[in-house]
Amino acid sequence: MERIILKIGGSVITKKEEEVPAVNMENLQKIAKQIGEFYNLNKTAKLIIIHGAGSYGHQIVHKTDIHNGVKTKSQLIDFAQTQRLQNELDLIATEVLIENGIPAMPVQASAMAVMKNKKLSRMDADAIEGLMNTGIVPVLYGVPAFDEVIKCSILSGDEIAPYLAKKLKFDKIIHATNVNGIFTSNPFEDEKAKLIKKINKTNFGKIKKGITGSNTVDVTGGMLRKVTELMEIADCGIKSQIISALVEGNVKKALDGDESIGTIVER
Amino acid sequence: MERIILKIGGSVITKKEEEVPAVNMENLQKIAKQIGEFYNLNKTAKLIIIHGAGSYGHQIVHKTDIHNGVKTKSQLIDFAQTQRLQNELDLIATEVLIENGIPAMPVQASAMAVMKNKKLSRMDADAIEGLMNTGIVPVLYGVPAFDEVIKCSILSGDEIAPYLAKKLKFDKIIHATNVNGIFTSNPFEDEKAKLIKKINKTNFGKIKKGITGSNTVDVTGGMLRKVTELMEIADCGIKSQIISALVEGNVKKALDGDESIGTIVER
Repeated sequence: MERIILKIGGSVITKKEEEVPAVNMENLQKIAKQIGEFYNLNKTAKLIIIHGAGSYGHQIVHKTDIHNGVKTKSQLIDFAQTQRLQNELDLIATEVLIENGIPAMPVQASAMAVMKNKKLSRMDADAIEGLMNTGIVPVLYGVPAFDEVIKCSILSGDEIAPYLAKKLKFDKIIHATNVNGIFTSNPFEDEKAKLIKKINKTNFGKIKKGITGSNTVDVTGGMLRKVTELMEIADCGIKSQIISALVEGNVKKALDGDESIGTIVER
Repeated sequence: MERIILKIGGSVITKKEEEVPAVNMENLQKIAKQIGEFYNLNKTAKLIIIHGAGSYGHQIVHKTDIHNGVKTKSQLIDFAQTQRLQNELDLIATEVLIENGIPAMPVQASAMAVMKNKKLSRMDADAIEGLMNTGIVPVLYGVPAFDEVIKCSILSGDEIAPYLAKKLKFDKIIHATNVNGIFTSNPFEDEKAKLIKKINKTNFGKIKKGITGSNTVDVTGGMLRKVTELMEIADCGIKSQIISALVEGNVKKALDGDESIGTIVER
């Protein structure tokens, strides 16, 4: 049985562009149903779910600037309030997951994560590993966290996933996003853009030129940085698969090991 | 400036005997107001708040028996659901604390706590210490946690408090309860029961006989076990003060260092 981390983008399960925090309940329920179908046939699967913050995080963070550190007393309140909001979103996510028969337990990463100048420095994962081995499906999520240099920075789901994958020896990270994968150029601007089925050391150099800019997955630093990160993870023996969670059945397919959808990034 | 852990009993901030989880909002608001008054005059204070579960925990735990371990698949769901409920209570508690100007940030202890046969075995506290030094007031709470022997057991606020006090070198734990302190006998049964102002090595042996049974604070094992535990903590140089949070102004007084109220347990 593979050990899988399923990262669900905040832009998929929330209405990301809303001014106020808003869940995209339709998407959340569809995805939870597919995870439930997988889980109920694979109860011994080792599975960790990580979700992004979407409209529960980005707006408040940009408004309060806490991702660049805490400089004022009032930012301490913003820090606390931002954490509260993430717990609120996670309560909704875990409720829907539990309704689908998944023993989905909230795990707040900022309870033990220590950042160092915006990078995750260390995070004890003994409890997470124990919970997982017990049969629990730990559900982590993007959080504001203690930073030993600038006091506060953002620990995103995209950083938690590879950290745990390495630490707990996972085989694969599935990124459930709002795009079909990685394209040769920006598919929203270039009608000739083609989905890249596999990226590895052999073709990475060649396709590098096309995937500049932020053409797809909503990640700071754009798509090239994202793919470069996934290549680094692949180097540690952890495969990534980027799929669109908006296509019916895709999440279940990916969990079942179907590598014909989306983009695979491997060594 | 003293380093204080304020433990608020679940029986104070919830309606403990209700069938369904219910917050005692009046008590919660009164206590939060007093903490806010203290915090706003002592912004450099090192303060950790820990609250109990009350009706958010006891009913579901007894119904599902998860405090005695996880034996069935359905108990995995109970485990996850119990954690969700604790996060729900904590969201309400931190909201009211933030409304009173306190940078009260949720910290889910089960994200990193590892239990061993119903006792806390280890819990990384680097992030908690960092948050506290940054000016955040970490808010922890009783949780169901991974147990390396029986898979799941309950990590109560009463166990988190001394663990953190020792690890982070705190001076005092204030127990905000629904009784005035520790009495010479059960005050609900014996009209001659007298409040004990101070308990230490000199008088502990003598008063031991009176405080048997579960006459006051709602703790498994009764009052004697509770006081014995507090004596052990006192031995490590950590003073305890047991006060009634139901008496107007008591929480603020205790935070301000007034030791004339309640019972002091010291070396």
